[in-house]
Amino acid sequence: MITARARAMAGPTEPFRTITVERRDVGSHDVLLEIAYCGVCHTDVHHARAEIGHTRYPIVPGHEIAGVVREVGTEVAELAAGDRGGVGCLVDSCRVCSACRAGQESYCRHGKVLTYNGVGRDGATTLGGYSELVVVDERFVARIPDSLPLDAAAPLLCAGVTMYQPLRRWGAAPGKRVGVLGFGGLGHLGVQISHALGAHTTVLERTDDRRADAERLGADDYRTTGDLDALRDSFDLIVSTVPSNYDLTAHLDLLDLGGTLVNLGVPDEPLRVDPYTLLTNRRTLAGSMSGGMPQTREMLGFCAEHGIKAEVEVIPAKQLEEAFDRLTAGDVRYRFVLDAATITEA
Amino acid sequence: MITARARAMAGPTEPFRTITVERRDVGSHDVLLEIAYCGVCHTDVHHARAEIGHTRYPIVPGHEIAGVVREVGTEVAELAAGDRGGVGCLVDSCRVCSACRAGQESYCRHGKVLTYNGVGRDGATTLGGYSELVVVDERFVARIPDSLPLDAAAPLLCAGVTMYQPLRRWGAAPGKRVGVLGFGGLGHLGVQISHALGAHTTVLERTDDRRADAERLGADDYRTTGDLDALRDSFDLIVSTVPSNYDLTAHLDLLDLGGTLVNLGVPDEPLRVDPYTLLTNRRTLAGSMSGGMPQTREMLGFCAEHGIKAEVEVIPAKQLEEAFDRLTAGDVRYRFVLDAATITEA
Repeated sequence: MITARARAMAGPTEPFRTITVERRDVGSHDVLLEIAYCGVCHTDVHHARAEIGHTRYPIVPGHEIAGVVREVGTEVAELAAGDRGGVGCLVDSCRVCSACRAGQESYCRHGKVLTYNGVGRDGATTLGGYSELVVVDERFVARIPDSLPLDAAAPLLCAGVTMYQPLRRWGAAPGKRVGVLGFGGLGHLGVQISHALGAHTTVLERTDDRRADAERLGADDYRTTGDLDALRDSFDLIVSTVPSNYDLTAHLDLLDLGGTLVNLGVPDEPLRVDPYTLLTNRRTLAGSMSGGMPQTREMLGFCAEHGIKAEVEVIPAKQLEEAFDRLTAGDVRYRFVLDAATITEA
Repeated sequence: MITARARAMAGPTEPFRTITVERRDVGSHDVLLEIAYCGVCHTDVHHARAEIGHTRYPIVPGHEIAGVVREVGTEVAELAAGDRGGVGCLVDSCRVCSACRAGQESYCRHGKVLTYNGVGRDGATTLGGYSELVVVDERFVARIPDSLPLDAAAPLLCAGVTMYQPLRRWGAAPGKRVGVLGFGGLGHLGVQISHALGAHTTVLERTDDRRADAERLGADDYRTTGDLDALRDSFDLIVSTVPSNYDLTAHLDLLDLGGTLVNLGVPDEPLRVDPYTLLTNRRTLAGSMSGGMPQTREMLGFCAEHGIKAEVEVIPAKQLEEAFDRLTAGDVRYRFVLDAATITEA
């Protein structure tokens, strides 16, 4: 058994404390990753503070992991010690259902294992990336190209592929008009990816204060909520990163013939859709959840090729609570990333 | 000016009466159609009884028109006197917007002219197919293949293409699992089309009483609402013909990875969708509205090739009120069709 230090919360209102966690011995298909950075996703806050589903304490959050491979099992062919590797939302899946066979592990229906607050094959609660080390099956470790800094790469493992997947699935490409609703942790990556795919990319935000950043990262246009009437019937694809309730019908109205709105957020209330708005222009509302491992690898290569990086604020472990609060308030540009070297600091 | 007899309602609770209507002279691109049959669509009831939108009285409903061409304009090349022709929901559109240029006239945004209760280019209210004659631009008249009886073909012009379009758009084909929610005027055509496209076709209905008809028309399976739990994650495509509110989330749950539910109905209340249900399996909810003229022609050829016909109950004009009432009660197998030869009967 391997031990590692990690930052954990013992209850929904407890502070983070350094604990020692156990990682399994490196099996024949396993990779031991020394974590360098771990992105702080809004989902971490929800789970750690028991705001969604069921939280198993102590919880070690973190599913945007970037680091360096220290050891690999005897059967591991694609990675070796010294390689740079990343882990996203999953550390295992059933591998036999139709989704797994299609490389869509995030939709596995018989045994998807979340990177933290999940239940592993050994029955133990999984512990995530706010830690020094993690042992993960090679299928769920993606090589991080050398040109991507590890801190800026970490958020790609969840936020990056969560944007890349729908943009590719729904055809962001030259000649297409893409809207990115919300310019935050997800949105600032979506803009870069959409721009690199050649689509005309518009940011839709509540206020004007992120315009300069959006344009710097490739947005062709930036519109605020007051502009919606002028944008009717003008998008082929809108990807909504908004986590809370919003006027979905008003945004569906922005879609041109055959257009699609992909909703990534999970607000508390059901989505409400005017049926006639969907009929008009033959519109589509779709959901999307992260992405599978083949597409995660493809996305990392794409980001390396196009110089796409998360804009990060690297924080030490002792600032995790503050980061959670600021994340809840939307006060980050655009992703907090935990420096794993600080986990043992007081 | 051409005159014709028609059945009209003078107000939302008035009976149908025979009136004389004017049809424009046959212009260079016009077709004069002698109407043989006109389908009675649920939308007719809504408009005639002023249940949706704004109704201009007197109203002559009817947008599932089948008949014989009596005269064509000097520039009409594709149709000649004696040909069999049909007219659906539209008699004109702007022809220049992107939707019209794509042959998707039902999504025209600058001047779509509904076959009845619309406003024509001359400013007059359009009068529909519960009539002896109609004059329509050739673009909006589709040839009806000889092998299709005119009474059974009439409902194809609206109900048929309304089902054909989403089934084709969303990939009903061999190896695909298609659900048709609601086995009525739309559904009984959808089952035949889906079956002919080679998809495994399941009818989803509230009760068991239409099972024999569904199986006779090509359904591979027939399930009632009580079976829903057993059907989770088992469809690639569901086309919902339900016009009223229903448990949309429970039906989205039936979709497998990447599956689509196409909602054709316009219930009074907004559709309510659990966002997590959409994320699960990367599901899609789409709207669809009738179909354009190229696809209408394609659909008629497809139905002729595969022997697809509406199952109709032909009625005389004097039974229109009764038919409206029975249609509202869902008491028809599966489409009323007005015999236009009876319009002048007392």
